[in-house]
Amino acid sequence: MEKLKKHVSVKDEDQFYHQGAVELLVFNFLLILTILTIWLFKTHRFRFLHETGGAMLYGLVMGLIIRYVTKASDVESGTVYECEKLKSGPSTLLLNITNQVYEYQYKGEINHHNVNGHQGNAMLQKMTFDPSIFFNILLPPIIFHAGYSLKKRHFFRNLGSILTYAFLGTAISCVVIGLIMYGFVKAMVHTGQLQQWEFHFTDCLFFGSLMSATDPVTVLAIFHELHVDTNLYTLLFGESVLNDAVAIVLTYSITIYSPKENPNAFDAAAFFQSVGNFLGIFAGSFAMGSSYAVVTALISFMHLTKFTKLCEFPMLETGLFFLLSWSAFLSAEAAGLTGIVAVLFCGVTQAHYTYNNLSQDSKLRTKQLFEFMNFLAENVIFCYMGLALFTFQNHIFNPLFIFGAFVAVFVARACNIYPLSFLLNLGRKQKIPRNFQHMMMFSGLRGAIAFALAIRDTDSQSKQMVFTTALLIVFFTVWVFGGGTTPMLTWLQIRVGVDPDEDLKAQAASQSASNLDKNTTKAESAWLFRIWYGFDHKYLKPILTHAGPPLTTTLPDWCHPIARLLTSPRAYGDQLKDGDTDYIINNDELTENYEPSAHIPTPAQGNTGSTQATGKEDIHEGDLGLGGYKLQLQRTAGQPQMHSLA
Amino acid sequence: MEKLKKHVSVKDEDQFYHQGAVELLVFNFLLILTILTIWLFKTHRFRFLHETGGAMLYGLVMGLIIRYVTKASDVESGTVYECEKLKSGPSTLLLNITNQVYEYQYKGEINHHNVNGHQGNAMLQKMTFDPSIFFNILLPPIIFHAGYSLKKRHFFRNLGSILTYAFLGTAISCVVIGLIMYGFVKAMVHTGQLQQWEFHFTDCLFFGSLMSATDPVTVLAIFHELHVDTNLYTLLFGESVLNDAVAIVLTYSITIYSPKENPNAFDAAAFFQSVGNFLGIFAGSFAMGSSYAVVTALISFMHLTKFTKLCEFPMLETGLFFLLSWSAFLSAEAAGLTGIVAVLFCGVTQAHYTYNNLSQDSKLRTKQLFEFMNFLAENVIFCYMGLALFTFQNHIFNPLFIFGAFVAVFVARACNIYPLSFLLNLGRKQKIPRNFQHMMMFSGLRGAIAFALAIRDTDSQSKQMVFTTALLIVFFTVWVFGGGTTPMLTWLQIRVGVDPDEDLKAQAASQSASNLDKNTTKAESAWLFRIWYGFDHKYLKPILTHAGPPLTTTLPDWCHPIARLLTSPRAYGDQLKDGDTDYIINNDELTENYEPSAHIPTPAQGNTGSTQATGKEDIHEGDLGLGGYKLQLQRTAGQPQMHSLA
Repeated sequence: MEKLKKHVSVKDEDQFYHQGAVELLVFNFLLILTILTIWLFKTHRFRFLHETGGAMLYGLVMGLIIRYVTKASDVESGTVYECEKLKSGPSTLLLNITNQVYEYQYKGEINHHNVNGHQGNAMLQKMTFDPSIFFNILLPPIIFHAGYSLKKRHFFRNLGSILTYAFLGTAISCVVIGLIMYGFVKAMVHTGQLQQWEFHFTDCLFFGSLMSATDPVTVLAIFHELHVDTNLYTLLFGESVLNDAVAIVLTYSITIYSPKENPNAFDAAAFFQSVGNFLGIFAGSFAMGSSYAVVTALISFMHLTKFTKLCEFPMLETGLFFLLSWSAFLSAEAAGLTGIVAVLFCGVTQAHYTYNNLSQDSKLRTKQLFEFMNFLAENVIFCYMGLALFTFQNHIFNPLFIFGAFVAVFVARACNIYPLSFLLNLGRKQKIPRNFQHMMMFSGLRGAIAFALAIRDTDSQSKQMVFTTALLIVFFTVWVFGGGTTPMLTWLQIRVGVDPDEDLKAQAASQSASNLDKNTTKAESAWLFRIWYGFDHKYLKPILTHAGPPLTTTLPDWCHPIARLLTSPRAYGDQLKDGDTDYIINNDELTENYEPSAHIPTPAQGNTGSTQATGKEDIHEGDLGLGGYKLQLQRTAGQPQMHSLA
Repeated sequence: MEKLKKHVSVKDEDQFYHQGAVELLVFNFLLILTILTIWLFKTHRFRFLHETGGAMLYGLVMGLIIRYVTKASDVESGTVYECEKLKSGPSTLLLNITNQVYEYQYKGEINHHNVNGHQGNAMLQKMTFDPSIFFNILLPPIIFHAGYSLKKRHFFRNLGSILTYAFLGTAISCVVIGLIMYGFVKAMVHTGQLQQWEFHFTDCLFFGSLMSATDPVTVLAIFHELHVDTNLYTLLFGESVLNDAVAIVLTYSITIYSPKENPNAFDAAAFFQSVGNFLGIFAGSFAMGSSYAVVTALISFMHLTKFTKLCEFPMLETGLFFLLSWSAFLSAEAAGLTGIVAVLFCGVTQAHYTYNNLSQDSKLRTKQLFEFMNFLAENVIFCYMGLALFTFQNHIFNPLFIFGAFVAVFVARACNIYPLSFLLNLGRKQKIPRNFQHMMMFSGLRGAIAFALAIRDTDSQSKQMVFTTALLIVFFTVWVFGGGTTPMLTWLQIRVGVDPDEDLKAQAASQSASNLDKNTTKAESAWLFRIWYGFDHKYLKPILTHAGPPLTTTLPDWCHPIARLLTSPRAYGDQLKDGDTDYIINNDELTENYEPSAHIPTPAQGNTGSTQATGKEDIHEGDLGLGGYKLQLQRTAGQPQMHSLA
């Protein structure tokens, strides 16, 4: 009543006092509920609904409440106004209404059949937040964290397979989904459900590419908790991390693929341009991400005579680390590249170089900070996905399209995993067994990336149909496949409760006897990688970190003046502790296995290195048990989880 | 070129690919620059420009660049369109333009004379972000951190003075500024610079209230670094923290003060309603904030038989802590109360109760997290203030008004500090000396809160003039007063390099001889506070934390069944370590001084307690030197700062 007295409109008052607070409060409430649920699940070792599934469920219920309980507050906004003078939609519109100028900002196009859906429910409007928030704020910490916490040792051991699944597999999946969907679209046009011009083959490929991004969150969380076989874990983790990057660049390339005449006809020039785009964008993003990390490493490493070292100010160091990593993402986006790819490789590079230079305090701070941000961002995204089903106002549910999409997604996953695994097994010493392949097939969950790519553009009718369908596939896969992970593991008789270092220890033991095993590992990895490792160890690490041999010993004689400038004084003293610095977050045994200066290490050397690695990882993961099927108190990622496996 | 081919407008494409990334990148870049500058300043012990001043300067330069280098991209948006059919501005506007429906969202009113200023520079548009982001996202961590890191011991010792300055002082300041401004406005009306109806007395009071919020950031950072006398530090810190809360509630009360007829006439009913509003909102916000903290304490304290304790999952604990504290803010805002007040007292209560229940890991995590968020948010706000001078498009520079405001602000500060100090000195045992008063007068910087309150509403011409003037006062005070802090300290001969525990030690020493000093401290504090302390110690702490005597001993006999239920099993065992738990983040000596069960402690007791306190604080602050004017390596807040004072 008080508020109505003023001549300013009621809306203004409202905006002034709690603009945005209610919507944020809804999310806070959902997250608090989710955390309490996780707590409940963790204490009861309940694994049939993962936290992400729970977050989604709460979001769904909240969306239902918001949709059907809150009233349409602003009746007028359902009406469409005509403005003859306007020829196109400007980004900012100044309107003179009853002699007062109002400012309006462009939000998007609305399809005619959805106009009535815009009943002017302000709450619904506010809950559907800007997709750019996803891309610029919520996704980067998740992807960065994936890169920053990459288990390098196992990752590089399976590098070939991971790259195959990620690049070739995603391409196969994209094309297969695109083709199947094109068949369904043709059928829909035939039955009159769709106009020919509404859905091109490129739209089908667009759908294919965004649906090819698999989400590791749910499955990997369970794998991690259950200590599933490390090779399977690494294959899935590596695949899903890189595959996100590939799928995003693919989606982007497809969006800018624009054949000149008939959009359905194949235009070779445009196609090759798209392939070129793909490669260019991927390489550019990779370069962008790595350079930011290298800059961070250099700044944190710098020992200018007039400066106190940055590591004496952990807060500044953490801040700079955080900002530069985020800038890698934003710069890539601003330059028309893909931020996700940039931030992923930025994370990997930061872990490889910068982490070594950080103060002890900053190491802990950055780790905990990114872990926390990852946790929050992940749960926000899943809550939002749940909400979106009811709060998003432009849904188009087309049963045939949805059915087709489900078929396509599963067929495409099968076409990705089984043939590629067969091919890879031809080359691999350590084969990928049948049950691993089934598990990988089963783990093809769709999650945050697919959702984010779909919500980024919901202007046209075809894009709205794509969004609705993608959302339903995410729901289904997260709940059904995510929930079925534990039973599936049991059913496929996949080893759980494995100590990640068990094989390493076995290897170390066999190394003491013979050097065969070492050569096996060596042969498994690509020669390209060995060259890179040598270069990295000899030149990059000494320049960017305190580790490695001093440059003065690795560079040719005529470079010595430069070498002396670039070498940290600590490099000379720390030469003996060199191996240490390679065990970054997740120490890897590469130093041992690819040490170029010691081709045939003595048994003693091999032993020491491995024990060192194992000891370190033990501290990191804090295992009390040493693997097998016994009760373990795990402290990884700061969250101890009690579990025993029946 | 590629982009122009599509029939969708170019804007869409742009939005799709790097919407928001450029703007965020600008901020990241500014923050990185600021951090590098802080680093430079810290190593050179340069104190004439504080980091906040630096951030503001960079923002200013960047704003200048954005304003004059980027071009007006969207020419059309400068035009005002007429829409006869619309009678008022709906929040969402659907426009049919050339047979396509576009959605527009309401942004605000624009004054006629500012329409031309809207030249449609999209970059400027984007850089001026939503004021609700300030209120809901950037301010809460800063205020929470202030509450969470409150030095309780010194705070409570000066409670009376702090409350006087904060409540009475702010009210005086608000009224004085309001009156002086009203004089200037009258003069402006007289000279024809302003229309009578454009600026009411309530607008003057509104300006007065928002200009009464002093900002502690810059001065206190320097004080902290220089180890300025703890009493002065506490007085200023306490005043500026509480004064923000008071100023915000005052501003709110003035905005909803709406006399029915003539806005210039004094309406007693409306006035008392405003006073009632003020008290109600303050009390309500206080209650809201504390309840959230109590809920957090209870959850983290709970030991349900079927639950693993929450402190076994530090990540969940930290998450819950973070979300519940933020929810305190958001709930208060959503309920029409003041979030800042709620989150401030939430922080204080969290530090008092919840902190005790947290696991060691979470204690560190929460401290570092809030510290980091505080650091980032603060620098973002100051960068943004710098930016706003050139990017905000509705500035109204009125020289007379600005001159009046400068005069008013300084006169008001003098009317606040000197008379109140005189009155307080009548009652205080330990007087506030003249040089402290001058320093407090000099430290009346205006900062984030004043800016945030001013930017929250810039719809009308009077509000735009207020905003511009407030911004200029912030610039002036932060640069001139902030930069002059160190010379001023020297000039006023204020002790620096003081060990915060020095007086405590002196006290402990004198206590061993006699108990006089203890009684002095006791007499200084209010009787109300002693009663509260007793209640807190006997009932609240045992219920909410593991500390204090078991409830079974403090509650009357007939309550024993309930008491036994509510008492932590640890409370019995930990009885001896009770004093320990009071030394939360910044341990306080209250346990010693206000221990109700031991009215006349033996000298030994007094000694032990104080030594304990000192020892603890030493660990926290990591002082290597024991005070005085010697070189100290300080590690407070995780940032070691080397400094020696000439």
